[in-house]
Amino acid sequence: MAVVVQNIDRTDPDVIDGLAACGVATVHEAQGRTGLLASYMRPIYRGAAIAGSAVTILAPPADNWMLHVAIEQIKPGDVLVLATTSPSDAGYFGDLLATSAQARGCRGLIIDAGVRDVLDLEKMRFPVWSKAICAQGTVKETLGSVNVPVVCAGAAVEAGDVIVADDDGVCVVKRADAADVLEKAQARVANEEAKRRRLAAGELGLDMYQMRERLAEKGLRYV
Amino acid sequence: MAVVVQNIDRTDPDVIDGLAACGVATVHEAQGRTGLLASYMRPIYRGAAIAGSAVTILAPPADNWMLHVAIEQIKPGDVLVLATTSPSDAGYFGDLLATSAQARGCRGLIIDAGVRDVLDLEKMRFPVWSKAICAQGTVKETLGSVNVPVVCAGAAVEAGDVIVADDDGVCVVKRADAADVLEKAQARVANEEAKRRRLAAGELGLDMYQMRERLAEKGLRYV
Amino acid sequence: MAVVVQNIDRTDPDVIDGLAACGVATVHEAQGRTGLLASYMRPIYRGAAIAGSAVTILAPPADNWMLHVAIEQIKPGDVLVLATTSPSDAGYFGDLLATSAQARGCRGLIIDAGVRDVLDLEKMRFPVWSKAICAQGTVKETLGSVNVPVVCAGAAVEAGDVIVADDDGVCVVKRADAADVLEKAQARVANEEAKRRRLAAGELGLDMYQMRERLAEKGLRYV
Amino acid sequence: MAVVVQNIDRTDPDVIDGLAACGVATVHEAQGRTGLLASYMRPIYRGAAIAGSAVTILAPPADNWMLHVAIEQIKPGDVLVLATTSPSDAGYFGDLLATSAQARGCRGLIIDAGVRDVLDLEKMRFPVWSKAICAQGTVKETLGSVNVPVVCAGAAVEAGDVIVADDDGVCVVKRADAADVLEKAQARVANEEAKRRRLAAGELGLDMYQMRERLAEKGLRYV
Amino acid sequence: MAVVVQNIDRTDPDVIDGLAACGVATVHEAQGRTGLLASYMRPIYRGAAIAGSAVTILAPPADNWMLHVAIEQIKPGDVLVLATTSPSDAGYFGDLLATSAQARGCRGLIIDAGVRDVLDLEKMRFPVWSKAICAQGTVKETLGSVNVPVVCAGAAVEAGDVIVADDDGVCVVKRADAADVLEKAQARVANEEAKRRRLAAGELGLDMYQMRERLAEKGLRYV
Amino acid sequence: MAVVVQNIDRTDPDVIDGLAACGVATVHEAQGRTGLLASYMRPIYRGAAIAGSAVTILAPPADNWMLHVAIEQIKPGDVLVLATTSPSDAGYFGDLLATSAQARGCRGLIIDAGVRDVLDLEKMRFPVWSKAICAQGTVKETLGSVNVPVVCAGAAVEAGDVIVADDDGVCVVKRADAADVLEKAQARVANEEAKRRRLAAGELGLDMYQMRERLAEKGLRYV
Repeated sequence: MAVVVQNIDRTDPDVIDGLAACGVATVHEAQGRTGLLASYMRPIYRGAAIAGSAVTILAPPADNWMLHVAIEQIKPGDVLVLATTSPSDAGYFGDLLATSAQARGCRGLIIDAGVRDVLDLEKMRFPVWSKAICAQGTVKETLGSVNVPVVCAGAAVEAGDVIVADDDGVCVVKRADAADVLEKAQARVANEEAKRRRLAAGELGLDMYQMRERLAEKGLRYV
Repeated sequence: MAVVVQNIDRTDPDVIDGLAACGVATVHEAQGRTGLLASYMRPIYRGAAIAGSAVTILAPPADNWMLHVAIEQIKPGDVLVLATTSPSDAGYFGDLLATSAQARGCRGLIIDAGVRDVLDLEKMRFPVWSKAICAQGTVKETLGSVNVPVVCAGAAVEAGDVIVADDDGVCVVKRADAADVLEKAQARVANEEAKRRRLAAGELGLDMYQMRERLAEKGLRYV
Repeated sequence: MAVVVQNIDRTDPDVIDGLAACGVATVHEAQGRTGLLASYMRPIYRGAAIAGSAVTILAPPADNWMLHVAIEQIKPGDVLVLATTSPSDAGYFGDLLATSAQARGCRGLIIDAGVRDVLDLEKMRFPVWSKAICAQGTVKETLGSVNVPVVCAGAAVEAGDVIVADDDGVCVVKRADAADVLEKAQARVANEEAKRRRLAAGELGLDMYQMRERLAEKGLRYV
Repeated sequence: MAVVVQNIDRTDPDVIDGLAACGVATVHEAQGRTGLLASYMRPIYRGAAIAGSAVTILAPPADNWMLHVAIEQIKPGDVLVLATTSPSDAGYFGDLLATSAQARGCRGLIIDAGVRDVLDLEKMRFPVWSKAICAQGTVKETLGSVNVPVVCAGAAVEAGDVIVADDDGVCVVKRADAADVLEKAQARVANEEAKRRRLAAGELGLDMYQMRERLAEKGLRYV
Repeated sequence: MAVVVQNIDRTDPDVIDGLAACGVATVHEAQGRTGLLASYMRPIYRGAAIAGSAVTILAPPADNWMLHVAIEQIKPGDVLVLATTSPSDAGYFGDLLATSAQARGCRGLIIDAGVRDVLDLEKMRFPVWSKAICAQGTVKETLGSVNVPVVCAGAAVEAGDVIVADDDGVCVVKRADAADVLEKAQARVANEEAKRRRLAAGELGLDMYQMRERLAEKGLRYV
Repeated sequence: MAVVVQNIDRTDPDVIDGLAACGVATVHEAQGRTGLLASYMRPIYRGAAIAGSAVTILAPPADNWMLHVAIEQIKPGDVLVLATTSPSDAGYFGDLLATSAQARGCRGLIIDAGVRDVLDLEKMRFPVWSKAICAQGTVKETLGSVNVPVVCAGAAVEAGDVIVADDDGVCVVKRADAADVLEKAQARVANEEAKRRRLAAGELGLDMYQMRERLAEKGLRYV
């Protein structure tokens, strides 16, 4: 059952970059509050904000062999997404693998496991969102698969789906929905700018969103 | 049972600012090692140190409607404190609500749930101490209450209590005790400065605090 | 059973500094993937990388008395390692103890419990790897021991063992093995430099490590 | 600040026994979904269902001295409620203390820490709801308080409040509200019996609660 | 986006019952070690072993409205599978809903959230595998969906997939694979019986599986 | 570094059985409150109480090969103790391995990882204390070691040490200390029996242990 799917469909790079610019929270809202990975997935350094097509990896616990296999499948602009078949905090990925992935145009790694050499990765500006930072080494003994559907940190991801990641976490957008989600996300961004100005000027959300009547109907009492 | 208490008593601003200057660890010691929130409450960025009067919010899980209601109750110098009726990691608060709260003079948010747009919040210098960073959106469907007593991250907080928060965590000081606690905290700060100089010069705590005799009495053996 | 072992054997300072330069991940690999502390031990600030001889402390829960006793036993270049007899997140260590420890040449603290005054510690450049950041105060009531064997964050540590700590975590090297581990670690560093250049130039790990044949033997299929 | 409050007001025993008969889930609903302790509080054996007046204990970490002090304050029908000043999993309570508490008429223990001798406790039918089962021993070195307000597993409890506990968890009812909550809880029980019969006969909740119209209004689509 | 899919394909009842008889561990092995839900999903009582077609529910946090909607979709032999859009421990399900579900032939519930009335559920022999036991009540305010694809406790589940659950946990089998997996699982069961007899007679796995040579090749040394 | 130590020293069976009769809490107290494994190690069924000589296993994550190797090293009365080199919840052990181990006289398994087939194990009366119950299968690819020193659930264990396990958890007694610890444990048991009778008769611990004076000295106030 160990398989590497070589040809995957990717999304229009302009759509991908547009989604990165909108950010995780907005994209997640734009697609109906779906697609978020679990909030334990944290960036190894602050300030990175990326998007890219997912190259997925299903790996055994504490075995990083499939990362080498996956790196060959990377095209510029891709993001690696690693799920494990059994939970593991081991450090699957460090500066050597990051050097190799970056040389092929990889924009970052989403890993439901551990990562190491994090100071080097920050200096290289290779962002990683992970469950753990852990120096624990891994082996290269058991096969896994590349570009098969995976569940990573509680979200279903297929190869070629768009991954959006920033300081708020990680979100996946189905490839078929990406252009539509971008449109909705950009509408939200435009809409929020006007609201931000009104709120900064002191207008209350209660008035701006006309909430007072509905609150009263539901029974809110002021005392 | 959904209620907004509109008039709450606050503490003298000079007492509040004095407590902020002492810091969480000292204030917590000064009031007999009580009042700390659970240590899972972490700041979204490092270096913020605030104090203010608590405007409390009791909110349903993943429903941020009451934040809009609470913002109207803020007076300059207040701190929002949100507890939930059932545990939730959802992102109740982001840059739009922060813009509105900051416009009304709010100094920060303590939230036993999730927060999002954290990079924007850091840029705005609006500090938040939270249980999670999570982009997950929330709804506006169910009422909660504002300025009622809450238990937030394991500590009981009433509206108007003083909240002190810095990189060490979050501490609550009962309004009636605030002036007394400040006095004790400032005495500790003064006292610690002299100790710091002696320790920096190489004097041992064993001698400075005259611990050797009591250690021997308890049975400590050197081998 | 409360005991302070006063004379412990330490390792050659050159070996210690050599291990610090190699870093945790490399040292851990060089000694056969052993010796790591649990990955929940995180640095209070990023960028510190130290090594030193362990002065061990076995302390009761929420009682920091033995830290004062241990500081007297420090020699320049040592690292404090605190384990507890029962789990505790309390803040055993703050800026006063750090001032005292630093005055005696201590390079840092590894503590399977909490630490406080973290902003001050960062300004002093006194690094700590801990399970929690927590302002909770401690007492001085119950004895523990100094320089006895302990289990800290899941790893067995004896006084005089070498502790290596950086952003990837914390690793312990048995004193008797330190010179040998350093040799192996330095060989790894030298070896990795050449690999890094080849990977940066675009060569694949699959080819550089000659993995293709073994992957095929195990049954990996490309589709 | 170490204090034992000796005279506390208790609730009418008939009200207490009535609440026990209603059970935790019903009582919690009857008082507006408030008062639950965190769900990590689990019974050491299944099938116990009790209620009683709270004798509260605020104890230092891993120090069970105050339990001896509290037992003297027990009156028949009381329930011990122990909170700690700093988190601890240690085994504060075992078969000797249970023998003593049971001899004085205590109905059970709610403890936000650890318990031991659980097989003996089950044989004695002395129920405990705890955060952990842990053989770790404790000391008798530091004072705490008895019958002061505490926060136990996230809920505020005052001496004399009614504790209700069963396999679903633990709930606290304010003493002043107990009679009123009992009335509402008994009304719920009566009301549920009729519903149970209708549902058992195959009627749908959608029809019985007339939900179909409101679901359609909110936009639910059947496909 | 709130939708109820009414007609779903189910699997042959004989295949479903065959899978239940094989048990979770065997079924999971038979399909290549895939399909397990996270190990935090525990049965509310021991000894239940079921299988059935999944009726999936995607529910908002602490809102159990969609359970009423889903119960109408149950056919005899089905199993309810509830995932949430944001993590929640609240008690979505109790004895009234269980009465209704059981009246329609439901075999059990898999819920990545909380459940209550567990003593009643055990008496009714209605098994539940859940993340938490928690009396916390829920609301009926926000829509979700029924019979859409969900990720439940880290596993992707589609309506009509086969759920197998016992004391070892919960496993999902894709509907299209069910007959094939059953065949492989039954072969494993038959094969294990012979092995069990040989092992019970004292034969070693090292000999029965002919492991000695491969262990020596890999470098295992006996000392 | 993969090694099997074949000849290990064991403890006198009478001492071992004596320790089992005293139980974990008493043995742990008798050796100065040391030797407990972390409280997350729970029995798969209630009521088992064993002791035996440890046959230790250091295993890779999710790889149970070394269990087959270890079973050959078992002598009647031994207990298997498995630690992993990297955290894992996978189900290393099930009914086939238990059949084999039981055939060789093994009394139980202590495993800082997962176990499966728990209903079968309970029927066989083969007790296991584990971190998780999890059906996840394991591989047989990577070597580990047998009868080397390990850290299991935070406690250091050497081959031949005595393991005591019951419903309160798991405790390790150093082989050299076992006879001495037994003597102290039996003295405690004898001593507790008299105390239990006095407490059951209503005498207070405050009086029996003469605590009142020391409490007053420390400053406890009755109000």
